[in-house]
Amino acid sequence: MSIPTDADYALERDRADPLARFRDEFVIDDPDLIYLDGNSLGRLPKRTAARLREVVEQEWGRRLIQGWGEGWFAAPRRIGAKIAQLIGAQADEVIVCDSTSVNLFKLYLAALQARPGRRIVLTDDLNFPSDVYLLQGALRLAGPDYQLKIVRSADGMTVPDDALQEGIDSDTALASLTHTAFKSGYMYDMGAITEMAHRAGALMLWDLCHSVGALPLDLDGANVDLAVGCTYKYLNAGPGAPAFLYIRRDLQAQLLNPIWGWFGQKGQFDMKLDYEPGPGLQRFLTGTPTVLSLAAIEPSVELLLEAGVERLRAKSVQQTEYLIALWEALLKPLGVTLNSPRDARVRGSHVSLGHPEGLRIDRALIEEMKVIPDFRYPDNIRFGLAPLYTTFAEIHEAVMRLRRVMVERLYEKYPTERPEVT
Amino acid sequence: MSIPTDADYALERDRADPLARFRDEFVIDDPDLIYLDGNSLGRLPKRTAARLREVVEQEWGRRLIQGWGEGWFAAPRRIGAKIAQLIGAQADEVIVCDSTSVNLFKLYLAALQARPGRRIVLTDDLNFPSDVYLLQGALRLAGPDYQLKIVRSADGMTVPDDALQEGIDSDTALASLTHTAFKSGYMYDMGAITEMAHRAGALMLWDLCHSVGALPLDLDGANVDLAVGCTYKYLNAGPGAPAFLYIRRDLQAQLLNPIWGWFGQKGQFDMKLDYEPGPGLQRFLTGTPTVLSLAAIEPSVELLLEAGVERLRAKSVQQTEYLIALWEALLKPLGVTLNSPRDARVRGSHVSLGHPEGLRIDRALIEEMKVIPDFRYPDNIRFGLAPLYTTFAEIHEAVMRLRRVMVERLYEKYPTERPEVT
Repeated sequence: MSIPTDADYALERDRADPLARFRDEFVIDDPDLIYLDGNSLGRLPKRTAARLREVVEQEWGRRLIQGWGEGWFAAPRRIGAKIAQLIGAQADEVIVCDSTSVNLFKLYLAALQARPGRRIVLTDDLNFPSDVYLLQGALRLAGPDYQLKIVRSADGMTVPDDALQEGIDSDTALASLTHTAFKSGYMYDMGAITEMAHRAGALMLWDLCHSVGALPLDLDGANVDLAVGCTYKYLNAGPGAPAFLYIRRDLQAQLLNPIWGWFGQKGQFDMKLDYEPGPGLQRFLTGTPTVLSLAAIEPSVELLLEAGVERLRAKSVQQTEYLIALWEALLKPLGVTLNSPRDARVRGSHVSLGHPEGLRIDRALIEEMKVIPDFRYPDNIRFGLAPLYTTFAEIHEAVMRLRRVMVERLYEKYPTERPEVT
Repeated sequence: MSIPTDADYALERDRADPLARFRDEFVIDDPDLIYLDGNSLGRLPKRTAARLREVVEQEWGRRLIQGWGEGWFAAPRRIGAKIAQLIGAQADEVIVCDSTSVNLFKLYLAALQARPGRRIVLTDDLNFPSDVYLLQGALRLAGPDYQLKIVRSADGMTVPDDALQEGIDSDTALASLTHTAFKSGYMYDMGAITEMAHRAGALMLWDLCHSVGALPLDLDGANVDLAVGCTYKYLNAGPGAPAFLYIRRDLQAQLLNPIWGWFGQKGQFDMKLDYEPGPGLQRFLTGTPTVLSLAAIEPSVELLLEAGVERLRAKSVQQTEYLIALWEALLKPLGVTLNSPRDARVRGSHVSLGHPEGLRIDRALIEEMKVIPDFRYPDNIRFGLAPLYTTFAEIHEAVMRLRRVMVERLYEKYPTERPEVT
């Protein structure tokens, strides 16, 4: 790959970008700040700021309790139906509620109950730690016979399909994996792995947190059983916005939410004292939804639908390829490694660069260079490319600034330990 | 009780109200609308609208991911410590997270594990349905030997202490009750019931949803074990704002959250793959908190602390007494019943009036009279009095309008069935 390393080339790519106009949809107050952490917390869309003023000041402020009948009750399903369009699902297969963690908990226990007699859940060490903790907790509740099998990656970046194949058998109730790995950005073949689980009679759950909004997904096409995803990364719905869950339509009536809250109750306002799960995905609701945080999801998802997820993926691949080409020319000679797959077909929308001094380099980029990536132990500096607003010029400039941090050893003044989060 | 029934008397009471100035703290765009549903969804404080603009437009919009280190991570504990001041708890005994329903689920399973060998949970039929559903679900997970005992109220309004006493014995793991009943407003003696549970070796959980912010509570003084509460009623934190949970300090290390999310993990960002619960209440966090909905709680709680919960209770008692006196003089002769306790010492801050045509009367009040109470089956029209902003003049006028609905039979045009919520 011999891509030009000059800034003009990046500007040229931006001029040719059919999605360029979407950057104006976001609040960007400091053009010198290079924000490459949209895979942790997406930027604020201008229309979301306007929508939030409306829901707070008009709906809550003026309509008060009547807001429930005028859109709030319907929001988990209405917004779920829009997210469905991003992930290849039908409108009634996705609902917005709770956090990703709570949704995983609900689906894990529901899946174990749907596969009685099978005692094994399979995952891998590329999965997000919260997913693994939740599995450990769910299996503990299920009983002492249950067991978690964690497939280990050989290189810390990828897990070959055949390593998974070995772990799945007739005792496997569920395989639970993250589609795009949070450290390396390695992306599984959803169809092939799902089929592998199904051949053994197991259910398949995908965590879509690092995929949704950045690349096309086809959950129905891949015959996926269960999925969860968050909305605050590429969906740009704000810090801690509620998550979504997906259950394939034909499975919905078989699965039972273990958390029997009143929003999942059939005839919620009859206020009867015996729990009876509501129809479809309603039964996977729990308590009162966080209306303000929920409202922020809708305008963001509409923005993604306008841009089109195929076009977003095309730009994302161009941008990760561009970043990797610049790394090869300018950073690899300085001892920086590529901790993401080289092949775009198995890579999501972030690229991890590695260095033994990664933690301090990350600090120097933030404190001195106005570049915001994020850091994941042991040595990953993650650069999240959000095709809706990241420019080629930003990628070029970020690499230049990182190069300066390396050449001038600007990281040496920073501590080698992460400061305590309080 | 012979209280004057003229409007001037109500205005006089408002002029003498030491909390009158707090009404100006709220967005009230239509002074003719009488909002008596603050016990379902509190009004919007002006300072909350300002705070939400700040958190959206400044913190998320400009500080982006850095918002986490600048206040968002600390918010569940910081805001919990403020709520602690409202309920007689220590700062480290309250944390804000998830919904009331999810928090109940966590505490129910934690309590059952902390009382191994005991198979009974006690509740009553005044409890909120969601609490009962969650118990049914938790007991189902715990195993077939577990059982829920529901004490029935004789009159639909109150459950005498001795009826509970009969239900609690050495096989009781937990007693779970709502402190102020959602229909009648009946308020339990927290200290006496908690002591009753403790004498039998059971844990005691209180649902504070209809109490917190309207009356003083002394959880530590009553030696309460566990509590939950919501923030969108008298705490005025907006639709579906996150809930809080309380665990007495000496119990915290013994109790285990069944939902093992990453926010509960010790050393969350070490990203290790084995769950280890964090210290204190951190272990009861689950997934990423909904920052926007969470942020709305803080200014509201500060407002309540400024007003002082003792003064709020004094005004609330005066207002419920006033409403009941007007009912007696003007509504009782028209066949309207009092479905709340007559004795203020066992009554919270809402008053339920009953009538066989309650559902249609409620509709007529809303559609034609600009009075917003709410309705709870079978016949309760609930009038929630929020002492921070409800005026005596509003109570007077609401009774006059209700009287007109009754005298002119304005409710007769409305359907006898509740419309489907969609």
